[in-house]
Amino acid sequence: MTINLLPNERMDDLHRNGFKIIQNSERFCFGMDAVLLSGFADAAEGEKVLDLGTGTGIIPILMAAKTKGEHFTGLEIQPESADMASRSVAYNRLEGRIDIIVGDIKDASTTFGASSFDVITTNPPYMIADHGLTNPDEAKAIARHEIKCTLEDVIAQSAKLLRPGGRFFMVHRPFRLGEIFPLMTKYKIEPKRMRLVYPYVDAEPNMVLIEGNRGGKPRLKVEKPLIVYNEKGVYTDEIYDIYGY
Amino acid sequence: MTINLLPNERMDDLHRNGFKIIQNSERFCFGMDAVLLSGFADAAEGEKVLDLGTGTGIIPILMAAKTKGEHFTGLEIQPESADMASRSVAYNRLEGRIDIIVGDIKDASTTFGASSFDVITTNPPYMIADHGLTNPDEAKAIARHEIKCTLEDVIAQSAKLLRPGGRFFMVHRPFRLGEIFPLMTKYKIEPKRMRLVYPYVDAEPNMVLIEGNRGGKPRLKVEKPLIVYNEKGVYTDEIYDIYGY
Repeated sequence: MTINLLPNERMDDLHRNGFKIIQNSERFCFGMDAVLLSGFADAAEGEKVLDLGTGTGIIPILMAAKTKGEHFTGLEIQPESADMASRSVAYNRLEGRIDIIVGDIKDASTTFGASSFDVITTNPPYMIADHGLTNPDEAKAIARHEIKCTLEDVIAQSAKLLRPGGRFFMVHRPFRLGEIFPLMTKYKIEPKRMRLVYPYVDAEPNMVLIEGNRGGKPRLKVEKPLIVYNEKGVYTDEIYDIYGY
Repeated sequence: MTINLLPNERMDDLHRNGFKIIQNSERFCFGMDAVLLSGFADAAEGEKVLDLGTGTGIIPILMAAKTKGEHFTGLEIQPESADMASRSVAYNRLEGRIDIIVGDIKDASTTFGASSFDVITTNPPYMIADHGLTNPDEAKAIARHEIKCTLEDVIAQSAKLLRPGGRFFMVHRPFRLGEIFPLMTKYKIEPKRMRLVYPYVDAEPNMVLIEGNRGGKPRLKVEKPLIVYNEKGVYTDEIYDIYGY
């Protein structure tokens, strides 16, 4: 299948089912966090999944390859990113399983209706909008900073969008955990599973993977550490496995 | 100095300043959690520290050895444990720095007054009272299960007892993190630092060390993993260091 690439766009191999993804080197490109989330999350046969802030569609495309989830919707506020995502979906012949929708996370429960998904995945902006340097490039800034939506927007909308008992999967930065758990509890998405990602065994973690359950009872399973590198430039076996090498 | 030991009591060496501690093999004896908390917490010159649920006084005694904290108070509801703690304090000639008080955590802010401490340490009961097996031995059950006080009691009292900006140090089980952070936020003890304790590098963590700050701003520092064993029976260097061997 041929595909039209716009200026600065490239296609990257995802090492799963022969799938590829279109990205633009000048815009936000997916990172290890999205790949790790797609390995941490799960979707069973017949389940409907919504990815909030899907960017170029990396999470639904990887989860379409890795899980038996029936249908994936990717919601993205930036039309240029959503357009790349839609073209990647078409290239990978996933139109029957993945829809890409342009829209605002803050309106998502109105757009899709309450209790309309079994699973939500999200790799939201990590940085508080007024905190630290804001990226001068607007497209990257929107992907990284809470400009268009906050952590509370993501969690509040997820609570409405999930059916009772539905699962919420998020990758975020550990320094926000002191806000993440209280917000999840406030909106009755009970934290059920957490895994911290440490670059090296003797380093501070730089990512956290979280699973919540809408209406669940309190009891958190904290999993073994996910360590990225054995030594500089050498991934651990688990990382190679998640990446599908 | 001679010391009277009651039936089943023994003295254990703490490997710090020649200090020893009296414990009763039939009752709750301190574990690695208390030792790790005493290494995680800090108290600066001139600071007043309160240990909530001090048991046999292990945390104030170790912190008296390790820190320059001016004064330590250990609050314990079980008179027999408090009596062992008081005799250990006397044996170690720490009467000038440590007071052991018999009393209820739920009344602590009335007992000591609001904003009366710079630092609080606590190794509270981990298990919910109506959850899992309750220890048939009442003394151990009170130390392990939330019979006399709940996690919320500990945090609510700590918020009253700490001066603004005062520090809260707790060791607990990771499975309660989904309750710990929301309760800390509710009572305005902001989670500022966390370290997970993993028995082995490839195992789930079984303890969590947490520092909070009364009235602090949200931003959590998650530290590198604390790994207990290199291999079966062989502690890591960091554990030997914390134990003072």
